[in-house]
Amino acid sequence: MTSTTRLVYLGPPGTFSEAALMTLPIADRAQLDPLPNVAAALDAVRQGDADGALVPFENSVEGSVSTTLDELASGDLLQVTAEVVLLIRFALLARPGTVIDAVRTVSSHPHAQPQCRRWLAKNLPDARWEPSFSNSEAARRVQAGEVDAALAGAFAAPRYGLSVLADDVQDVDGAQTRFVLVTRPAPPPPPTGSDRTTVVLFERDDHPGALLEILTEFAVRGVNLTRLESRPTGAGLGRYSFSVDCEGHVSEARVGEALSALHRVCAEVRFLGSYSRADGRAGVVRPSTSDDAFHEAAVWLSGLRGDTRARSTDGS
Amino acid sequence: MTSTTRLVYLGPPGTFSEAALMTLPIADRAQLDPLPNVAAALDAVRQGDADGALVPFENSVEGSVSTTLDELASGDLLQVTAEVVLLIRFALLARPGTVIDAVRTVSSHPHAQPQCRRWLAKNLPDARWEPSFSNSEAARRVQAGEVDAALAGAFAAPRYGLSVLADDVQDVDGAQTRFVLVTRPAPPPPPTGSDRTTVVLFERDDHPGALLEILTEFAVRGVNLTRLESRPTGAGLGRYSFSVDCEGHVSEARVGEALSALHRVCAEVRFLGSYSRADGRAGVVRPSTSDDAFHEAAVWLSGLRGDTRARSTDGS
Amino acid sequence: MTSTTRLVYLGPPGTFSEAALMTLPIADRAQLDPLPNVAAALDAVRQGDADGALVPFENSVEGSVSTTLDELASGDLLQVTAEVVLLIRFALLARPGTVIDAVRTVSSHPHAQPQCRRWLAKNLPDARWEPSFSNSEAARRVQAGEVDAALAGAFAAPRYGLSVLADDVQDVDGAQTRFVLVTRPAPPPPPTGSDRTTVVLFERDDHPGALLEILTEFAVRGVNLTRLESRPTGAGLGRYSFSVDCEGHVSEARVGEALSALHRVCAEVRFLGSYSRADGRAGVVRPSTSDDAFHEAAVWLSGLRGDTRARSTDGS
Amino acid sequence: MTSTTRLVYLGPPGTFSEAALMTLPIADRAQLDPLPNVAAALDAVRQGDADGALVPFENSVEGSVSTTLDELASGDLLQVTAEVVLLIRFALLARPGTVIDAVRTVSSHPHAQPQCRRWLAKNLPDARWEPSFSNSEAARRVQAGEVDAALAGAFAAPRYGLSVLADDVQDVDGAQTRFVLVTRPAPPPPPTGSDRTTVVLFERDDHPGALLEILTEFAVRGVNLTRLESRPTGAGLGRYSFSVDCEGHVSEARVGEALSALHRVCAEVRFLGSYSRADGRAGVVRPSTSDDAFHEAAVWLSGLRGDTRARSTDGS
Repeated sequence: MTSTTRLVYLGPPGTFSEAALMTLPIADRAQLDPLPNVAAALDAVRQGDADGALVPFENSVEGSVSTTLDELASGDLLQVTAEVVLLIRFALLARPGTVIDAVRTVSSHPHAQPQCRRWLAKNLPDARWEPSFSNSEAARRVQAGEVDAALAGAFAAPRYGLSVLADDVQDVDGAQTRFVLVTRPAPPPPPTGSDRTTVVLFERDDHPGALLEILTEFAVRGVNLTRLESRPTGAGLGRYSFSVDCEGHVSEARVGEALSALHRVCAEVRFLGSYSRADGRAGVVRPSTSDDAFHEAAVWLSGLRGDTRARSTDGS
Repeated sequence: MTSTTRLVYLGPPGTFSEAALMTLPIADRAQLDPLPNVAAALDAVRQGDADGALVPFENSVEGSVSTTLDELASGDLLQVTAEVVLLIRFALLARPGTVIDAVRTVSSHPHAQPQCRRWLAKNLPDARWEPSFSNSEAARRVQAGEVDAALAGAFAAPRYGLSVLADDVQDVDGAQTRFVLVTRPAPPPPPTGSDRTTVVLFERDDHPGALLEILTEFAVRGVNLTRLESRPTGAGLGRYSFSVDCEGHVSEARVGEALSALHRVCAEVRFLGSYSRADGRAGVVRPSTSDDAFHEAAVWLSGLRGDTRARSTDGS
Repeated sequence: MTSTTRLVYLGPPGTFSEAALMTLPIADRAQLDPLPNVAAALDAVRQGDADGALVPFENSVEGSVSTTLDELASGDLLQVTAEVVLLIRFALLARPGTVIDAVRTVSSHPHAQPQCRRWLAKNLPDARWEPSFSNSEAARRVQAGEVDAALAGAFAAPRYGLSVLADDVQDVDGAQTRFVLVTRPAPPPPPTGSDRTTVVLFERDDHPGALLEILTEFAVRGVNLTRLESRPTGAGLGRYSFSVDCEGHVSEARVGEALSALHRVCAEVRFLGSYSRADGRAGVVRPSTSDDAFHEAAVWLSGLRGDTRARSTDGS
Repeated sequence: MTSTTRLVYLGPPGTFSEAALMTLPIADRAQLDPLPNVAAALDAVRQGDADGALVPFENSVEGSVSTTLDELASGDLLQVTAEVVLLIRFALLARPGTVIDAVRTVSSHPHAQPQCRRWLAKNLPDARWEPSFSNSEAARRVQAGEVDAALAGAFAAPRYGLSVLADDVQDVDGAQTRFVLVTRPAPPPPPTGSDRTTVVLFERDDHPGALLEILTEFAVRGVNLTRLESRPTGAGLGRYSFSVDCEGHVSEARVGEALSALHRVCAEVRFLGSYSRADGRAGVVRPSTSDDAFHEAAVWLSGLRGDTRARSTDGS
């Protein structure tokens, strides 16, 4: 590790990932470097070349970022320590002086195009779309004269000497992307009362009711899921792992007991971290699944068993 | 407590309860005293007048003994420390010299009559049945000449100077009664690998899905129920508590975690004991709910949390 | 069947069963006859000697009447067509002129004694209790001078020439007994919007999760249970059938589909009737389980399947 | 509709989609036309310009094809009538005479690159990867000299005048892609005994247990899921619809009742078809959820209700 904190992000400069990273206090005093893809960013952390990586995780229109899910689900274990949610607004960037009627080609990352499809069909029905590695790369290609316009965040315009031809060109207002800051494994940050926990669950065998069992382990302990995504394990069609976000922090008794239960019934539970929620929402905790309720139950059970030794207060 | 162990049982002498008590090693060196009813026997334990009480709990034909369930579910807490299962065989006892055609009246405890109903209808269609407090009391009444015959265990005949007019008069062969030995609360006997745990569950409020929730708490932890009986709480029709037997011992992780969960979701969990099963059957434990699995999961969770303190091995 | 309707009840005259029967309009123009026990009353219906039988079903303090449950669960099928709920109040009846200090013996049906136990312990601590076949029989025995006092409904006093020594001697006020009117099988009475359905469920095999499965079949269709009682099947300890009351009427789609599902998964579903609730309460029906919702879903499914034939409106 | 059947597929010619389409008997006598993207192919069907569209649905390594899922989940209803599963093998295609050391740039559809990542890292560590709209488009660009090599099916080589530089360059052997043939809504093809049903489920409201409820509706009726994918509804992070494949055919009782139940509890159930499985596997049907069991239950219920009208045999 370098003496200065080094954080990497899904580049190039000017991406939403960079914008997301810059909202985190830790970025203020760190060296920020773009890397060309998610795998490279995560590998930099794994290999100790970076202290953290900021990568996109899911989008409210496009869904999960499969690459991120799959890279986190395999290889050396990494840990999510923070999340950032950005409102996604797209602008149409072009070289200064370009008029909209002159736009024949538009480029962007493949994730951006579907989010602006209706706007493009209406305003640029004859323009051809070309994929780029990233929206920033598309902007660079506009600068280089390779294409006429790029879909990107308006904040990328000055970086590439471009003008904003049209702003808010996304079809759906309010689209959001969730980014995660990933580090090497370490004890999770302390609970804030508004936390989220992320795990990847691999079934012990491929039996039909496995997902129902998994959901039941969460539900009986009052742990609400906020995201569940199935991903192929690569072992053939019909074989999936589950990427899951739930409310709460691993240090809380109901979450800890649920994770322990999953550890018992799954082939593998890959713990990807407990961290503060970007939306600040406190999850709903039923009185019967509060830490106090677990503590009281543990004391009661200890009495039944005739234990005289001191008891820990968690319910796991 | 007296210097000699004093055990009481549902009397009078000659009942199946006495026969059941005498199968227990503890009875060999104890003073055995009959008491007239279940409440009296349990109260003698509560008040310290006796060290244990042997009372009937359920019968494979007649069902639970409501009085026993209700007496154990209220009042000062008591604890089941052993169970005895007896094969129930009834004989028709009469004064020596009586011929069956001369039997005009038959008496027994109200629980015995239904178990011999078909035999009575066929062999003594015109005899009148009269209730007695117990089968032994019926035998005493035969001795006293108040009735002609009694339904009772054949072993009661010599005690009352009676003869066995007909043996095995029960309609269903193989009927069994389960008896329990009840003491004041104490740490339960150690697990034997073939144990049973008894609790009474009071719902927190009267919502329709309460029983489903209760069963789910057992099921997700792989704890099989062997008996579930609803009993009115006395608060009105439709208000029930549940008397439950499950496989396993409170010291086992899966049972402990299930009881703790019920303690959280129920208004009250009344623990009535963990004790060796009379049938010697080892409950089926899924690998994912073994003590080893719980222990491994607890160690894993501890690692996730970054705990450095030593961890207990149970899953509660 | 006789030209006049003949209804029988658990006698003798003066029982709560008679009082319950007399609350039903059908009793106004019928011949009412007591029979000595529940089995006799039900057999009279089975054999065509009576058109209906009124028998006790459960008590809010004492619980289910096992004999009634068991007699309905076996033998020729019978059907519950009405229920009556009576508030149970006990009086202490004695011969006129008797003072309470002179009462040495008290008699009643064994179900009555526990409901007055505390009153007896306080007011007649030295009196001996004797069982009778019924509270009315106890009153008759008082009249005959065989015992000093009887626990019975105050309404029984004039019938046996007795006085009320003390009224409301029950320990718990508000105790209720539910009685059922039983007939031979016939199409159930039409739904009233406040109905109850009674079934007996026999598991297909004795697997640990059977009861959970049964409850789930009700729960997924939004059918609330109001009573669940396990009864031994007679096949050995640990083998039970379940006597169940649920909200709603067999003609309603959600109830019909739930019963059909149970018919598929159980060894036997013994349908004991759908009938109007005595308490007049309308069960809570979620919008998603209303008859309208089932009808709409059936029409939708029919469209998916490309059915052109007319569809029935129920969801079974 | 044209007089000749016209089928479209995800082009350009030489894609796996074309190869998949050509395995279907219906393709033998139809006009086959490539379209540039999934949306265009599906819209051609919607607008009546084509009779069917063959598009990729999911891949055993890369997961679902989000575009296909999303296009089928919105807009005018379409229907899956067949599926095709292809083993995916990639070759490295180049202009004849090219040696591997001369390859500086490799292009493919973004889905192909991750499936060959390790091979590329080992054999072409310095080559730059460029995205193309499709693997065939990449081959065309090789032909045009814009890039040096393409990842594509070996069958695409002759079409673009290319040679196979290396075959089987995929990292994981046995990767499969499932394609679906989509038509306008019509009664589904008859059941074959090895069928699959696809639906999209929209929750009625965003409550934590919604997915558990959905899975329970399938599970209680013995309907196994073979795929469950969450997709954002676009209404914000945390709001999902579920794309589900289950075993069985809508004409089967257990599937029909499950779909009807979901229709009652979900905001919308979008039925995308029942069709023969490509793997020919017969789903496991428990005896209690066979069509016979449903039929028998329906007849039984009809008898309970006193229905005299004829009954349909389905369980819905």
